[in-house]
Amino acid sequence: MKIELICTGSELLMGKLNTNAAYIGARLSALGLDLSAVTDIGDRKPELAEELKKAFQRSSVIITTGGLGPTFDDITVETAAECLGLEIYVDEKVLNTINEFFAKRGISSIPKINERQANIIKGAKVLDNRFGTAPGQMLHFEYDEGNGKKSRKTLFLLPGPPREMQPMFEESVEPFLRSYFSGIKKNEVIHVFGLAESAVEELIKPVMVAAGFGSTQTVEFGILASSALIDVKFSVSGSNEMLVDETVGNLKLAMAEVLKDNIFGYGSDSLAVSVGKLLLENKKSLSCAESCTGGLISKKITDASGSSAYFKSSVVTYSNESKTRLLGVSEETLKEYGAVSENTAKEMAEGSLKLAESDYAVSATGIAGPGGGTKEKPVGLVYIGIASKKNTEVFKYNFIGTRDDIRQRAANTALDLLRRRINNDVSARVPKKAKK
Amino acid sequence: MKIELICTGSELLMGKLNTNAAYIGARLSALGLDLSAVTDIGDRKPELAEELKKAFQRSSVIITTGGLGPTFDDITVETAAECLGLEIYVDEKVLNTINEFFAKRGISSIPKINERQANIIKGAKVLDNRFGTAPGQMLHFEYDEGNGKKSRKTLFLLPGPPREMQPMFEESVEPFLRSYFSGIKKNEVIHVFGLAESAVEELIKPVMVAAGFGSTQTVEFGILASSALIDVKFSVSGSNEMLVDETVGNLKLAMAEVLKDNIFGYGSDSLAVSVGKLLLENKKSLSCAESCTGGLISKKITDASGSSAYFKSSVVTYSNESKTRLLGVSEETLKEYGAVSENTAKEMAEGSLKLAESDYAVSATGIAGPGGGTKEKPVGLVYIGIASKKNTEVFKYNFIGTRDDIRQRAANTALDLLRRRINNDVSARVPKKAKK
Repeated sequence: MKIELICTGSELLMGKLNTNAAYIGARLSALGLDLSAVTDIGDRKPELAEELKKAFQRSSVIITTGGLGPTFDDITVETAAECLGLEIYVDEKVLNTINEFFAKRGISSIPKINERQANIIKGAKVLDNRFGTAPGQMLHFEYDEGNGKKSRKTLFLLPGPPREMQPMFEESVEPFLRSYFSGIKKNEVIHVFGLAESAVEELIKPVMVAAGFGSTQTVEFGILASSALIDVKFSVSGSNEMLVDETVGNLKLAMAEVLKDNIFGYGSDSLAVSVGKLLLENKKSLSCAESCTGGLISKKITDASGSSAYFKSSVVTYSNESKTRLLGVSEETLKEYGAVSENTAKEMAEGSLKLAESDYAVSATGIAGPGGGTKEKPVGLVYIGIASKKNTEVFKYNFIGTRDDIRQRAANTALDLLRRRINNDVSARVPKKAKK
Repeated sequence: MKIELICTGSELLMGKLNTNAAYIGARLSALGLDLSAVTDIGDRKPELAEELKKAFQRSSVIITTGGLGPTFDDITVETAAECLGLEIYVDEKVLNTINEFFAKRGISSIPKINERQANIIKGAKVLDNRFGTAPGQMLHFEYDEGNGKKSRKTLFLLPGPPREMQPMFEESVEPFLRSYFSGIKKNEVIHVFGLAESAVEELIKPVMVAAGFGSTQTVEFGILASSALIDVKFSVSGSNEMLVDETVGNLKLAMAEVLKDNIFGYGSDSLAVSVGKLLLENKKSLSCAESCTGGLISKKITDASGSSAYFKSSVVTYSNESKTRLLGVSEETLKEYGAVSENTAKEMAEGSLKLAESDYAVSATGIAGPGGGTKEKPVGLVYIGIASKKNTEVFKYNFIGTRDDIRQRAANTALDLLRRRINNDVSARVPKKAKK
């Protein structure tokens, strides 16, 4: 069974990353299914018609994203209907849903243009869009692949915006595909920080080799690196769920043995979520004092719902004056060592601890570039401070890359240093308790 | 002249973002050229052969990335040669270059497997790879598109790793394309905030219709919406650069007339960059007091290099206690109205103004969800405050979507409100000056 994806949108041909293809590829892969091809094309009928016809001929499941919006360049529904020789009708129920959507936002009369989104292909099932006005559509049909023999095909029309497409994919496309697919496949992702990608590969090589022998199951591995975060992925497929689970468990243990405390989480854990869990478990609170990261560390921490339980406050002090006024960094320190220095990072972290009355504080000061670098303090130089009542440590880094790369790496590194610090503090406390 | 891209690599079908397609799309767009299609397929000969044949038939320039490495699944060179009925030979010069590459790294004998990378299609020009062992290839050939008429085509085989592909693209592909393309095409993007996508289309429709008549140039339009930011794109092509520029200028004026002050920028401007420019021009400084946005507003502002010139400081006050301690929000206000209220937003903005001694301050307090909502204060409720010495205004919103959607919309809306406020303040000042 071939599954293929057609993404429409001229922006995909002009430099925009196709995150929908990545998302759908990853979800299918997690289901143990393969995507056979992805095609990006502009919002033009002849091109889309050509791609659809080709896809109908060679694939069993065809998914499109984009082109369901209200504007003139949204042409997916009519093009698909024309390719299949099917009619389009205005679905009253969909029209009502669109009306309600606008009514909730205080707009009483639906803009004429949005009525186009109630156009449904005859025979298609409407897929609800909980986050927008464009419904999706699922259509089963018979198609002559050219040899006179008709084959059964399924076409999914999904909206382009990821926040609309993703829930629809999970709620409507995945259940259909799961019923199509019978074997067992489980995936695991191990998140690693603090090692180079090649070092991770060297460490896990023996585990990968051992997994290949004497097993009735198929095991696949992959490594993916981004902003110093490394994901080790593996999937185990087989026919017996208990055995598959056992292999997944054994592999996790074997990976943990070689990757040690460089593992910060599994599955959907982010670095910030892992740090949050640690803080929560140990009933500790956190504050931040950011300069070069400009709010990015706080943003990452508060990406996690429920972070208010451990995150107290943060200050972003971009000017020297604010470093002194808000955090109490001494004017002498700033004068003698500069804003980007070990001493400033130390005083920022300690100032944040005092200001927020938190258990831990993280600071970051550096040169994110592209301007502002000197020979002594080049772009990418970042000092990160970690303070608790017990002591303050400062770490120095020379990150490389764009302004965004440097800020992302600095924020991730700050979170990882904090994670290691809390873990150390906890393990230092445990033996003491045992002595009692 | 159609240009199309075929990217091979099974990882592209399993969740990896195709950054090569985004890079090449952006570079071509900057040259005024259009990519007509992108196809991602796995490393299998039959699929690649099918895509190549289709591309040869419909496009003049065909670019492939990936599949030039030394391993068994690198099949691009032999597949392309087979499709065109051409032979492959081992290029001695390339073999020497590969030898040197390994020698430089202290490896005296070239791994047997890497010799495959010296396989060149007969008639192709070798494109140097300065960052890896796999050379690229450029091949001009005649192809029968099916009507008996042979057309001249150009095929580029480029390596997959971006650090190898990108310099090769800039050094070898771009000069060729530049000489190939004689027409002029200019792109423009107008950034809009504060209008629904459908409202934008209604407004620009007359401009679009007018642009279609009586012109010797081709004009194309598109609209793209994301987190309430709307991009109106258009491109003008023609043979006379002066006339093309004139049309671009006229269209910009006509768009500005209908979209009015909802336009916040052009081209590479982000909302934060536009606000930054305004602050800089008017010599005003900014501070933030963030609750539900958790640092996102500050992060957006400091994404812009040079933001230290106008951005003073920011506080992220997640707890009630920190709102009182850092920003001076009164305990009575928090008790009587709650942390998510008009009064708290007002006191947060005013507290930030005082704390940072800035000219403007932005505050945001709300319920980002998914937890924490009540009937009176549902998830998505956000108050945004804008303060200056003159006065403080608070705006109430009910945003929808995921936690991330709500935070993004809140941050973008805060920046847009600030932009409008500064613009109002400036235009209010101008007549006064005129009176003197």
